Amino acid sequence: MGVADLGLPVDVPSTALFTDHYELTMLQAALKAGTAERRGVFEVFTRRLPHGRRYGVVAGTGRVLDAVENFRFDAGVLGYLRERRVVDEPTLQWLADYRFSGDIWGYPEGEVYFPGSPILRVEGSFGECVLLETVILSILNHDSAIAAAASRMASAAGGRPLIEMGARRTHELAAVAASRAAYVGGFTSTSDLAAGFRYNIPTVGTSAHAFTLLHDRERDAFQAQVDSLGRDTTLLVDTYDVTEAVRTAVEVAGPELGAVRIDSGDLLLVAHRVRQQLDELGARDTKIVVTSDLDEYAIASLAAAPVDAYGVGTQLVTGSGHPTASMVYKLVARAESADPRAPLKAVAKKSSGGKTSIGGRKWAARRLDADGIAEAEVVGTGPVPAELAGRQLLVELVKGGEVVGREPLDAARERHAAARAALPLSATQLSRGEPVLPTEYATEGSGN
Amino acid sequence: MGVADLGLPVDVPSTALFTDHYELTMLQAALKAGTAERRGVFEVFTRRLPHGRRYGVVAGTGRVLDAVENFRFDAGVLGYLRERRVVDEPTLQWLADYRFSGDIWGYPEGEVYFPGSPILRVEGSFGECVLLETVILSILNHDSAIAAAASRMASAAGGRPLIEMGARRTHELAAVAASRAAYVGGFTSTSDLAAGFRYNIPTVGTSAHAFTLLHDRERDAFQAQVDSLGRDTTLLVDTYDVTEAVRTAVEVAGPELGAVRIDSGDLLLVAHRVRQQLDELGARDTKIVVTSDLDEYAIASLAAAPVDAYGVGTQLVTGSGHPTASMVYKLVARAESADPRAPLKAVAKKSSGGKTSIGGRKWAARRLDADGIAEAEVVGTGPVPAELAGRQLLVELVKGGEVVGREPLDAARERHAAARAALPLSATQLSRGEPVLPTEYATEGSGN
Repeated sequence: MGVADLGLPVDVPSTALFTDHYELTMLQAALKAGTAERRGVFEVFTRRLPHGRRYGVVAGTGRVLDAVENFRFDAGVLGYLRERRVVDEPTLQWLADYRFSGDIWGYPEGEVYFPGSPILRVEGSFGECVLLETVILSILNHDSAIAAAASRMASAAGGRPLIEMGARRTHELAAVAASRAAYVGGFTSTSDLAAGFRYNIPTVGTSAHAFTLLHDRERDAFQAQVDSLGRDTTLLVDTYDVTEAVRTAVEVAGPELGAVRIDSGDLLLVAHRVRQQLDELGARDTKIVVTSDLDEYAIASLAAAPVDAYGVGTQLVTGSGHPTASMVYKLVARAESADPRAPLKAVAKKSSGGKTSIGGRKWAARRLDADGIAEAEVVGTGPVPAELAGRQLLVELVKGGEVVGREPLDAARERHAAARAALPLSATQLSRGEPVLPTEYATEGSGN
Repeated sequence: MGVADLGLPVDVPSTALFTDHYELTMLQAALKAGTAERRGVFEVFTRRLPHGRRYGVVAGTGRVLDAVENFRFDAGVLGYLRERRVVDEPTLQWLADYRFSGDIWGYPEGEVYFPGSPILRVEGSFGECVLLETVILSILNHDSAIAAAASRMASAAGGRPLIEMGARRTHELAAVAASRAAYVGGFTSTSDLAAGFRYNIPTVGTSAHAFTLLHDRERDAFQAQVDSLGRDTTLLVDTYDVTEAVRTAVEVAGPELGAVRIDSGDLLLVAHRVRQQLDELGARDTKIVVTSDLDEYAIASLAAAPVDAYGVGTQLVTGSGHPTASMVYKLVARAESADPRAPLKAVAKKSSGGKTSIGGRKWAARRLDADGIAEAEVVGTGPVPAELAGRQLLVELVKGGEVVGREPLDAARERHAAARAALPLSATQLSRGEPVLPTEYATEGSGN
């Protein structure tokens, strides 16, 4: 049995209930009408980036592949659907045999994206594709939101290590996926043991204020920690008085003390003061870790401060103001009939409210300027222009139901660093602005 | 084996890795120092409500109880911790026998809370309590954030049904917990089949735009849906032209048509127009469901519109601007020694940055005015004043390691409705303001 990559410390046999009720009722009605077997093409894209953001980051693709592979309706699930009369018996029988047999192409994990980028393309019968809407969007919308925030923070940190420590601020399993997405976006380690267990992300941590408060004196707590964890541990120095704590810390651990952590106060001011004090005490190699309510702006404001690592919690796991990407999963083309040879026809919703979509099965390419810097996201239907053929963004992920696009998490992390580096310099400005690349459409019949 | 209530469609044997690395290293150092067995009292509270919010809603308590019950370190987990050298052998042996044996009291699920409210109180040895920090905070911070948003939306909806349909906008398992929290906060049903399966929340749904686009004509799609799902189904009428679609819908289903759904456009305007058209077509009992980017403000703005139900997605599952509560888990008292008879001593961090806590093991009560309306949240240490004894908020949840506070989800839902109704009327104003109840401290030696 495959492993449903839900970030769980245990395997989960099925992802089939991470589905909205209406996907099953649509299936039932289409089965009855004879339209469920029409070939369909669904695409995941976003109409806009979160306000002011310059680029998006694709994350969760690896989790999507596992979710699709494990999307099965076992007896327990079918029993529930029958008991609640969610769908009728013919539909239950169809579901019992369900296994995605189609094709999925998509932006590889870690790649950047822009409004209109066809991030994922799912092709198969309407019936088999329509069921995957919710689980695919849940994963991509969550993970991409976290990765985008992580990427901005990593830019702001300018190479200093970033520790993900937001598990306590989000759902316990979202936390595991958030650690994973943060790692893709450029974070270095996590506090979350489940993320370490599941994804081999390095885990770190030493102590909290409770440990100091447990002991009769701060000195006793520091001594206990050094005795057990060694001199290269990180001592938390802001439970009482920071200056006093730093002095005690170096007395207890000696100048070999690994690091001190500051979790409150004016971090810029306190970091400078602590650095000076550590240097005066001869602890020149002792590092300073800061961890108080950081976001990309606070990290950037500490660029000139003597800070060696940042721990980020709330703002990372909540996407720094944008906890979800606004990706949608839309039918963009379908066959004229259930005949497998029937040609595809582009389709799109047409109504008010800014929700219009562009129909047709799409390709995407990133056009570079003469210096090799990205200058446009080109999204089209029909043949790919020769000059863009080598710059296509979609890769094959699932072929005839078999996952072919699995890769190690580090590959996504490295890809993201490279993709971000190839964007115009203004991509990493933290200030609000327009997407750093324009999206150009090259659709059939548009003259492009 | 107990069921770890993670909102999964399957049971999970252990929650022990939903833990931050530093909890285990603190345990190791305290075990070595002989301080791990000191009796400790940890409390969960928040220093402030999200900006402008009038009250908070406790949610996730039931999930916390299951997580504590299933917090065990099995061979696979211990092997991981050993291999990564997270902790030493004596600590691994201690963990192998881990089972929470202490006491937990807390605000019952669905209750409202305010800054400083001791939402959960965990007592036992320091070692056994310190390990629970992350999993408890993950659950309460996530679920309470969603319940608070749900409660405001339920107030705004004024009795009209609310459908939770945000699964696609959040992590696939956070979505299940979000459905549960939304139900506690006053929602009526969910689109998420996993939430229906796991928590018996009613699930609903009929069709998306893709279903209309699959068919050659909108009329064919409507006919297929009515043929399969019956005349009392809900037809989605904004794929092309709303007026045309409503006419077709009634032609196909007759005046017995259950409902039409509008998912875009100016909902106020369109709802009025559609209601008039339905009435003119004789479909007076056909309901109108709206589902486009709703939050509590949009819901309130439709109070006078002919809308029969609201479907809410993104803004619900992201806490309507506040995706996490800012609850913390702090050591507030601990014994002077490992002697089980040693007296408790109040402890608290004391430092800059607004992170000061109040030490001491706390009680809480809600004081009522002469009309029975809540007028203050009173939080104290030491003896409870006689006049507040009958208004205490904390209930026993775990006693000597055994869960004693489990209850059906509907109990939490009903409790929330009652608790909100007992608040001053200004509690349900949507505009930003101060907490609707002041928090008063009655600490020992403070003269209160």
